Parts: sequence; structure tokens; C-alpha cells
Amino acid sequence: MNDKIARFLDERRPATPCLVLDLDVVEENYRALADALPESRIYYAVKANPAPEILRLLVSLGSSFDTASVNEIEMCLAAGATADRVSYGNTIKKEADIARAHALGVRLFAFDSVAELEKIARAAPGARVFCRILTSGEGAEWPLSRKFGCDPEMARGLLLQAAAMGVEPYGVSFHVGSQQKDLSQWDGALAQTALLFKELEAQGVTLRMVNLGGGFPTRYRSDVPSPAAYGHAIDEALRRHFGNRIPETIIEPGRGMVGNAGVIQSEVVLISRKSANDNRRWVYLDIGKFGGLAETMDEAIQYSITTERAGRAEPVILAGPTCDSADVLYERADYRLPTDLKIGDRITIHGAGAYTTTYASVAFNGFEPLRQYCI
Amino acid sequence: MNDKIARFLDERRPATPCLVLDLDVVEENYRALADALPESRIYYAVKANPAPEILRLLVSLGSSFDTASVNEIEMCLAAGATADRVSYGNTIKKEADIARAHALGVRLFAFDSVAELEKIARAAPGARVFCRILTSGEGAEWPLSRKFGCDPEMARGLLLQAAAMGVEPYGVSFHVGSQQKDLSQWDGALAQTALLFKELEAQGVTLRMVNLGGGFPTRYRSDVPSPAAYGHAIDEALRRHFGNRIPETIIEPGRGMVGNAGVIQSEVVLISRKSANDNRRWVYLDIGKFGGLAETMDEAIQYSITTERAGRAEPVILAGPTCDSADVLYERADYRLPTDLKIGDRITIHGAGAYTTTYASVAFNGFEPLRQYCI
Repeated sequence: MNDKIARFLDERRPATPCLVLDLDVVEENYRALADALPESRIYYAVKANPAPEILRLLVSLGSSFDTASVNEIEMCLAAGATADRVSYGNTIKKEADIARAHALGVRLFAFDSVAELEKIARAAPGARVFCRILTSGEGAEWPLSRKFGCDPEMARGLLLQAAAMGVEPYGVSFHVGSQQKDLSQWDGALAQTALLFKELEAQGVTLRMVNLGGGFPTRYRSDVPSPAAYGHAIDEALRRHFGNRIPETIIEPGRGMVGNAGVIQSEVVLISRKSANDNRRWVYLDIGKFGGLAETMDEAIQYSITTERAGRAEPVILAGPTCDSADVLYERADYRLPTDLKIGDRITIHGAGAYTTTYASVAFNGFEPLRQYCI
Repeated sequence: MNDKIARFLDERRPATPCLVLDLDVVEENYRALADALPESRIYYAVKANPAPEILRLLVSLGSSFDTASVNEIEMCLAAGATADRVSYGNTIKKEADIARAHALGVRLFAFDSVAELEKIARAAPGARVFCRILTSGEGAEWPLSRKFGCDPEMARGLLLQAAAMGVEPYGVSFHVGSQQKDLSQWDGALAQTALLFKELEAQGVTLRMVNLGGGFPTRYRSDVPSPAAYGHAIDEALRRHFGNRIPETIIEPGRGMVGNAGVIQSEVVLISRKSANDNRRWVYLDIGKFGGLAETMDEAIQYSITTERAGRAEPVILAGPTCDSADVLYERADYRLPTDLKIGDRITIHGAGAYTTTYASVAFNGFEPLRQYCI
């Protein structure tokens, strides 16, 4: 935790659980990503953390925005973004929502199926569209299902049809998987994308844009490559596959923009053992799977968790405060906490700026959603 | 869906997604459970669905309430319950919350560890306490972890200490696992409980109450035993293990009280395939894992899902509307929907009255939490 957040927690002693997010770190991340990929436009993935303070900061820094719903579009506009800086990146949209976004001035839409393309053509005539293709997602820590994207062959057919339907076939997108630590994943996806560009060119359709998606990681329990390393790998892959005809590119960082900017302050509610000879303590926190730590599902995202105690660290099972037996955070992952840990102690969960506040449930078990302080 | 709900949907055409819950069904469930276990007091597990209309109805029917937090206690009191009808059943409580509950008049508290017992003794002197023991949970559809309960040996030691600490050792609780369809599970748990009663009696501590927990199922895709069958199995097990000294018993139905009272109305947002030769359609709904269907986690709870179309049913993958690749509802479970299903069609998700509204995320992807109509 940095000094600014530590000072805030010290002076304000906010009730726990809460998320404290340092806007200066968001700014650093924005600049690091912009430096690493100077030719790419940055579309912040609003879903990672839509706090108005974050959106206003990113507007002032020149960012664009990747949105998942009309509500998110309206939040961006309210924060001062112009509609030409907003992409409606969800491939699953109600036609009424497309029409609404179009009426608000949004002109860039994602699709991955003929039905979605038809909806866009009807509700947002003249818009620019990009088709999302399926990639493997190997190496990503958050599971990438086959939910989004279509195979490149289908993408080709749809992008060929687009112009006749009254929209502009603008580009291709992919996503290598969230918290992607394998830099070579972009190379494979860009090889597929470049082939698609060539095939379409041969059939008279010139695409202009590659949406490189997100996947930029934040540091949890182990180190991750730097933005510069990602920039270098992506730049090399672009040159390898597109030669001297590199298209416009955009990136959609979410976790990589805000993850390490936030820490969750929590409190130990209970420490117990299940029997006299139980070899692991159970440590129950005042935040769990339904209060903001949804990404601990299947122990996928493993946050770094610290306390101020200095005792010898011994294995624990970590769980949340609700009456739900599924609300266990970490049981298989090897978490250790000091033997002198006490009920009432503060616990710090690092790298928690992304996918926490809005994942929190409305009021499960009567617990309030996670409070956030942007400082 | 019953006629009352069908009429409401027909006349009001509420925006989707929404949950419509028939209070008459809740009343029927309450009466069926009361008839099935006439000697037991019913403590409704508020976390299943804390709608004020449900709480007020159950107050009027004479129900008591099992609560997980001070907020839930306050909701029960606001609905007209007196504090002597409220149990603070969470074994993980902040000491300040115990004190708050005590100040509100609550006198019945759960624990499963020495540290929790100490907190209760300090913050709620004189209260009745019951110790939760670990049971296996085999046969339950929702995973039962080792999160709650301690082994009976530890329970015995703690209940022995309780009186000296200034609280009343009142009973034992267990939970056979949510959506438990194996009636024999209560027998095993009651055998353990009766042994504990006897051992403590021999050491001078007479317990008065067995909390039989929840686990009473609701019908999803397949039939479940009737409340009467549960009542019969539990009654037999009580006689077998306690003979003619049957203690007070309480039950904590949640899912069994409200599950089948509610249906979710949803809309098909998109139907697509991932390639020309994809053999399964993807059907995307306007509700998903983060909008109320959290219990589809690992495809654990399998809702019955219907449409008004009559075409031949063919396999589908069902997914939610968010930009999260984990927001897939059913991929391995064999779900089928009519081949003539269209985008914009209404979809009905049955048995959705429990663990949906409050599980919904605050605003993930900018989508609003699930709306509920109690009729």
C-alpha cells in the first residue's frame, strides 16, 4: 500500500470493509500504457471500476471508453467524454439499447453474430462495426469461455455483408483473456487477424482497425510483466503480421488501469478451528465472495493479503462473513497469516481496484455493498 | 407459473428482467411446513428473500426468523416481529453487531467456536446460545463446505463452558446442506446431536433445543420430496434418537419457503452460433450470473426454463448479458430450447424466489439489480 492510501486510512479510519483507490496510480497506469503503446488509442474498460472520479480523470487524460451497457455510456458522457470517444463493446445488446446509444452519438459497435449485426444495422445505421473473433485464452488467470467471438471464417462472411447492410465494416477485435501473463498470446491472435484483413482486402473490403482487447494484468501474489513488455510484444507482433501496413489499434485495459490503484481494508471477524487438532485456522473477514471479492471464484484471482502483525505466518483458510457455505475465499491456495493475528485486526487486500465494487451484491445477508473512496 | 403470476405479467408487462413472487404460495409453503412438523417452530431464513412483503406475511402467520446480520434483524422488527422471534443465526459476527442485536432484544445466538462464544458472553450476557456442529452435507445440490460448525467433541467442551461464561447453553444446530434431497441426512445428524445431549446431561448440562437447520428443497428441474415426507423422516429420526424425551425443535427453511413462489421473467437478447457448423445455439438472456442467477455457479442450481414457443427443443448454451466470460449459466447441463425461439422472446425461469434478488450485483456492467414484484 502506498503512503497516500496509508495516510488516508490512518487519518480517516473508515468503517470496514471499504475500497480506497488512489487516482494518482490510475494516472500513472494510463501514462505507462500510453507510453508502451504510443500508436494505440486507449479505451478504458469501464466495467472494471466505473467510479465517476476515475472516469473524469481519464477523460482529462484523453482516454476513450469501452462500455458494456447504456448506463455505462451515460456515465462516460456525464464524466465529460464526447460520444466519439465511446465504444459499445458488448456483443450482446438489446436493439432498443443500440438505438439509445446511437441517439446519444455513439458510432462504434461490437458484434460477433449475424443477428447482432442486423440489430446494429437497423438501430444504428451508418455506424462503424468491428467483429470479435474467438481466441484460445490460454495463460489467462480469469477463465475465458467461448461466450464471446465467432470463428474467423464466420467473421469474414459477416464483415463482407456489413457494407450492404448499411454499416461500415471497420475492424476486428479479440481478447486474449483477463490477467493474461503470456505475451505470445497477442502474436497468435494478431496472426489470425492479419489473415482476415488480407482475405477481406482481396474481396474489396478494407478494414481499418484492430481492437487488441484487454488482458493487461495487475500484480496480485506474483509479479507480472511491465506495460512496456506488453507494448514491445504487441508492437513486434503487429510488424510481423501487418508489415508496413499497420492498422489503427485500440486497447481496452480495465484491470491493468485500476487494479493496483486500490486496496480493500477489511477486519478479522473471527478466527477459529473446527476441532482441537485442526491444523489450519479459519480466518473470517468482513468481506467475502458476495461483498466484492467475486473474482475469488474457484480461487482464480489470488489477492495479496497482509496484516500489521509480525508473528510467524502459518496456513489459514480464508472465508467471508455471510451465512453461505460457498462464501469461502481461499482453501486450496496456500495462504498464511501470522499466528498472533487477532479478531478485530485490520487486513489489507492489495490490488483490489478492479472488479470489486460493482461485483458486490446489493444486500446479500443484509450486508451493504462495498464502499469506495477515491482519493 | 400459476395463474396469478401469469395474469400479472400479462396485464402489467413489466420491463425485464424481473422477479414476480406470489405471496399466496409463500403462505401455502408456511402452512405445509407447519403441518409437516407441528412440533417445530419455524424460523424463516431471511437471507433467502428479505422482501418486506414476505416478512410481514410471515409475521402475521406466526413465523420466527433466522437472521444473518443486524440489518436483517432490523428488517424483521420493522415488519412487526418481536425480538423474541428472532435468532441471530450467523456464527460469524462482529462483537459490536452482537451488542447491537442484544440491545434490540435478541436473545438467541449461534456459535461454533470459543472466540465467538466469548464475544456473545461479553456482548449479550444471559443470552441463549446454540452450537453448530459439522455434518457431511452429502446429497445437497448447493455445496456445503466446512465453513460452519465444529466437531461434536469441540461443541461439547464449549457448551460445558457456556454457563460459567454467563450465557445459557440452549441447544445444538446443524445444517444438512441446501436443497437436500436425501431424507436420511437428518437421521445421521440427529444421531450425533442426541449423543451430544446425553453426554452433556451426564455432565450436568441439560440442553433444550435442536435447530434442524434448513435444507428443505424447492422444485427445480426435477421433483423433490414433499414437506410431509421431510416431516415424517425427521419425526422418525427424533423418536429413534431421543426416545420419549424429544427436545424443542426449530427449522430454518429459506429456499423451501419462497423458492417456488417466484418466477423470473427474462428476454432473449441474442441467439447465435460461433461458426457455420456449430451444433449448439448460444442463447443470451438479459439476466445472468451477476444479475440474480448466482446459484448457477458451477451449474449447481438448475432452474426449469420455459418459453411460449412450441418448436422442437434442441440443445443450447445459456449465458447472461454481461461482458464477463464467466457469465455463462449452463453449458454442460443439458438445456434445450425450441428451434423457433426468437430474439425478444420472453423466457420464464421457474422456482426463482430464493437467493436471487439480494445475490444480484449492485451494478455490474452498468446493469441494474433485479427488480421484484410481490403480489
